[in-house]
Amino acid sequence: MSNVKFYSEIKSLQQQLQQLAAGYSATFILCDEHTEEHCLPLMRDALPDAFIIRVRSGEQYKNLGSCDIIWFALTHHHADRRALLINLGGGVICDMGGFAASCYKRGIDFIHVPTTLLAMADASIGGKTGIDFDHYKNQIGLFRPAAAVLICPAFLTTLDQRQLRSGLAEVIKHYLIADAAAFRRVEQNEKLSYDLALIARAVQIKSQFAEADPDEQHIRKALNYGHTIGHAIESHRLRTDVPLLHGEAIAMGMAVEALIAQHMDLLAEADADRVLAVLHRLFDLPVLSMEEIAAIVTLSAQDKKNTGATRRMALIDAIGSYVTDVAVGEEQIREACIWYNNGIS
Amino acid sequence: MSNVKFYSEIKSLQQQLQQLAAGYSATFILCDEHTEEHCLPLMRDALPDAFIIRVRSGEQYKNLGSCDIIWFALTHHHADRRALLINLGGGVICDMGGFAASCYKRGIDFIHVPTTLLAMADASIGGKTGIDFDHYKNQIGLFRPAAAVLICPAFLTTLDQRQLRSGLAEVIKHYLIADAAAFRRVEQNEKLSYDLALIARAVQIKSQFAEADPDEQHIRKALNYGHTIGHAIESHRLRTDVPLLHGEAIAMGMAVEALIAQHMDLLAEADADRVLAVLHRLFDLPVLSMEEIAAIVTLSAQDKKNTGATRRMALIDAIGSYVTDVAVGEEQIREACIWYNNGIS
Repeated sequence: MSNVKFYSEIKSLQQQLQQLAAGYSATFILCDEHTEEHCLPLMRDALPDAFIIRVRSGEQYKNLGSCDIIWFALTHHHADRRALLINLGGGVICDMGGFAASCYKRGIDFIHVPTTLLAMADASIGGKTGIDFDHYKNQIGLFRPAAAVLICPAFLTTLDQRQLRSGLAEVIKHYLIADAAAFRRVEQNEKLSYDLALIARAVQIKSQFAEADPDEQHIRKALNYGHTIGHAIESHRLRTDVPLLHGEAIAMGMAVEALIAQHMDLLAEADADRVLAVLHRLFDLPVLSMEEIAAIVTLSAQDKKNTGATRRMALIDAIGSYVTDVAVGEEQIREACIWYNNGIS
Repeated sequence: MSNVKFYSEIKSLQQQLQQLAAGYSATFILCDEHTEEHCLPLMRDALPDAFIIRVRSGEQYKNLGSCDIIWFALTHHHADRRALLINLGGGVICDMGGFAASCYKRGIDFIHVPTTLLAMADASIGGKTGIDFDHYKNQIGLFRPAAAVLICPAFLTTLDQRQLRSGLAEVIKHYLIADAAAFRRVEQNEKLSYDLALIARAVQIKSQFAEADPDEQHIRKALNYGHTIGHAIESHRLRTDVPLLHGEAIAMGMAVEALIAQHMDLLAEADADRVLAVLHRLFDLPVLSMEEIAAIVTLSAQDKKNTGATRRMALIDAIGSYVTDVAVGEEQIREACIWYNNGIS
């Protein structure tokens, strides 16, 4: 957590940013059309000389084409190795900006200023950067820590309800793998408030796992709970005209993977029920079509956590407890998808 | 040097490679049309199950398009994080293969098997990886060490004289910044033999600088002697139909930069004369056109070693001794180019 700082108001974040930027030869701010409109005006006064780099919003633009735009802009403004890139946006901007900065002239510093709940509670923390490639999520990327992560919940007022809820998925996931009491608070609170406490606990859990194992050799794998299936769903939907937000796909992934764990006798039925109850309450979980199930089976074969042809998942074996590297077969995935559908209809 | 090993014959290199590859989930060999024809057959028996990835040879293909080919091949053969990429080729293959491997699924191991003198004595050593972007050399890249570098001069028999001579430039450069006695041996030997001794001393110097300063914060910058001007010439020529080999451009860069050092009173005239005499003897140094000189001035403004708008060069201040971060103005570059031309005509 050493590089993560929390701010209850934009003003103090601005001051910190101004102070940090003064140590660099030039400052660049990466944003998309949404953060340019809603968030950049809140920052502009603090960094009047910063160059703005705009890319298009959305997971479908988290690719080499957008990196080209970033690298061209840095090159044409003569950014040297002591330049700074500030990533002002959600998970896509943080992941992609971090990757682009890490490769430019063999690496310049970057600072995340996450503007979505998902980026605050997850994407901006822990040093994973990356872009999608050939329909696979984060297939190209690096482990590289941000110089700083500055979190201010005030940016959340710029989000719509769908974006906010999507971010909640990673918060719930962090609680599910590491903090049963925090999960119980979610169960008991009919109306969640997206405040510093909710975010800070999620950040704390994410940071603990990421710092103990930056290269994801052992315990960090726990953070991938819900992600083998979730990423497959997200990748598949990206190819359709009804894409999902990352958190929406991860919520579905957590539901399916809880059922996998239950039917492998890793997770008690009562615990699986509690997980599914919260996910159904917070998310509008859609039914998986047969075509989607087939795609999930195929796409999960490419997951970065796999060893060779065997799918390896991070699952929960109780509320607040995880198990990694579980070998899961194709048939078990197919069956869990059917049980998931039965739980909806 | 811990990860660099020398082999006097291909047989023992093969055995080592076979042993190393056994520790990985799958092995990929990156080659171009030349190394596929001349070098791959020497390796095939040792690694019968390896997947071959082919890219087109030459600096003009050291780009994101070729990385696409590598990443697609790794993806479609389901390479996981424990896969290995062997870079079988010259500097382009080593630099680009190292970069592509470092970004694939946030990093897989790679081994360099350099097949040119330049790659053996320089490109494969010290963990710099990268590709060209927007006409700038290695604009996109990473510092990332190879898991191993296996050097066998037997591959040099596959090269033509022009390729061999090009590699000599970096050998001379290493001697010039760090070993006056080795440079004197080059001066005194009318006919150089491209043997293990010549290569090993260059590798040793390169390794010392790279290991003492992997991220190029201080002494590693010395290795850039000849490269501010050399890269600019190489970048410019890449846009024309008379491209130069890397070493040919660096030989020109060392000549111009020796003249810059002399006229800044950093380098004695007698020493500058010795440098130029060796470079003229070993290389067919061409005259710079006025257009080329203008391009050198413009392109050197983008050098990665610069701070802001000021060009910073690594120069020699004696045979076997260097100085880094020398601020050099546009006029000084222009004048040195003219003196360089006068030395030819």
